[in-house]
Amino acid sequence: MTLYAEIATLIAEGRAFVLATVIESAGSTPQKPGSKMVVLEDGSLRGTVGGGAIEFQIIEAARQLFSAPERTRTLETHLTHELGMCCGGRMKVFLEKHEAPMRLTLFGAGHVAREVAALALHVDFRVTVVDARPEWASSERFPGCEVLLKDPADHARALSSDARDCFCVTTHDHPLDQAVLEALLPKPSAYVGVIGSRRKAERFRMRLEAAGVEAAALERLRSPMGLPIGALTPAEIAVSIVAELIQVRRSASPRK
Amino acid sequence: MTLYAEIATLIAEGRAFVLATVIESAGSTPQKPGSKMVVLEDGSLRGTVGGGAIEFQIIEAARQLFSAPERTRTLETHLTHELGMCCGGRMKVFLEKHEAPMRLTLFGAGHVAREVAALALHVDFRVTVVDARPEWASSERFPGCEVLLKDPADHARALSSDARDCFCVTTHDHPLDQAVLEALLPKPSAYVGVIGSRRKAERFRMRLEAAGVEAAALERLRSPMGLPIGALTPAEIAVSIVAELIQVRRSASPRK
Repeated sequence: MTLYAEIATLIAEGRAFVLATVIESAGSTPQKPGSKMVVLEDGSLRGTVGGGAIEFQIIEAARQLFSAPERTRTLETHLTHELGMCCGGRMKVFLEKHEAPMRLTLFGAGHVAREVAALALHVDFRVTVVDARPEWASSERFPGCEVLLKDPADHARALSSDARDCFCVTTHDHPLDQAVLEALLPKPSAYVGVIGSRRKAERFRMRLEAAGVEAAALERLRSPMGLPIGALTPAEIAVSIVAELIQVRRSASPRK
Repeated sequence: MTLYAEIATLIAEGRAFVLATVIESAGSTPQKPGSKMVVLEDGSLRGTVGGGAIEFQIIEAARQLFSAPERTRTLETHLTHELGMCCGGRMKVFLEKHEAPMRLTLFGAGHVAREVAALALHVDFRVTVVDARPEWASSERFPGCEVLLKDPADHARALSSDARDCFCVTTHDHPLDQAVLEALLPKPSAYVGVIGSRRKAERFRMRLEAAGVEAAALERLRSPMGLPIGALTPAEIAVSIVAELIQVRRSASPRK
């Protein structure tokens, strides 16, 4: 497998990594311009730029880049002076961070979810769909998505999330919507939305409060979800929701 | 050709029409429930619900519906009393208006235009693309769109528009963008937007003002176009623009 094939696999798997490319070298250096290495978040590697102290320095710079606001960085190394390497020479390395795509989990596999899934995939979210009904939650209806044939509330309770998770709740049943929200709202997330009218939204807030969801968690709820563009059809509603998801993603990582 | 095939053709051609369906009939009526007739804006017909005074009444009701805010209407006719028809009986007719889809004309056939075209088609705009460059403005790149291999500024000057026309200006060249806008802004439209940064927007406003575009026309310009969701990639930018187009369409005809 070439390094590019490995990179393609990492992207398909939704994994974050930093790609380091030698862009200049002078004197006696272990690697020539174009040499590449991939550094994963756990420090593991694909490819090499020569090993030893210089590789260690690149790995360190890559790990710093993972948590830095910028997406790229250029690293200059003077092999002899700074690193005590005997081969001499100078290398410039370009580092580029590839963040893992944000995951969108759709609870409910109805008409709106199908449109949201297709459009969200198109703008590079990874998409998971959860519904217990096999006639709705099928790979045919959701190509390119992870499809889980499970009760949405069970999945919501069991999942562990982080601040980059997006959740859209659109099940076929209001009590089920509510059970899913009760489980999701206390968990970390970038976005939790539920489909429905302004009236349904108010009712839901009251019921969730009554069910003991704390005010801080309740503030996370976007309901009605989607930007207020007057959307009516499933395809239009998907545009309004995915526009809001992009807004959340871009405000979270403006340079991505 | 069945009436449904004729309706499908009208929709494909982007034409407005009212479909009249007999939903109840009692006594001696010329047509039974399910009978259908299509009325076009010019009063021409497809199908029939029996001819004569009753058909005349339905055509009149349909023509009123074209300019009414509501989308549907039910018409009850007592054939004997009101219409002086000898056959007697009573008919209830359901009228449904199908508005012509709004037309979106894209000036420039680049990457963003391609994404906008596909998404706008998906949410039921009719899409025309204008670009003089055959390698960009091809039917392969814009399936389902009308593709015009013309200079965008020439087309902008020549076209006649109405209050339901949407224009997105995304040519490969700023002076060309400006020439297109100079031609479009004085014409009637629902939407005129030009792609670009806030700085480009300010420069454009100044240049258009200097070129003699009147203040009222200049106010029509949406620049930067698209909802402010932080969109960066062509696919994301398309979501922001189409979301704005839906907003304009839905605010123009809330019940559509």
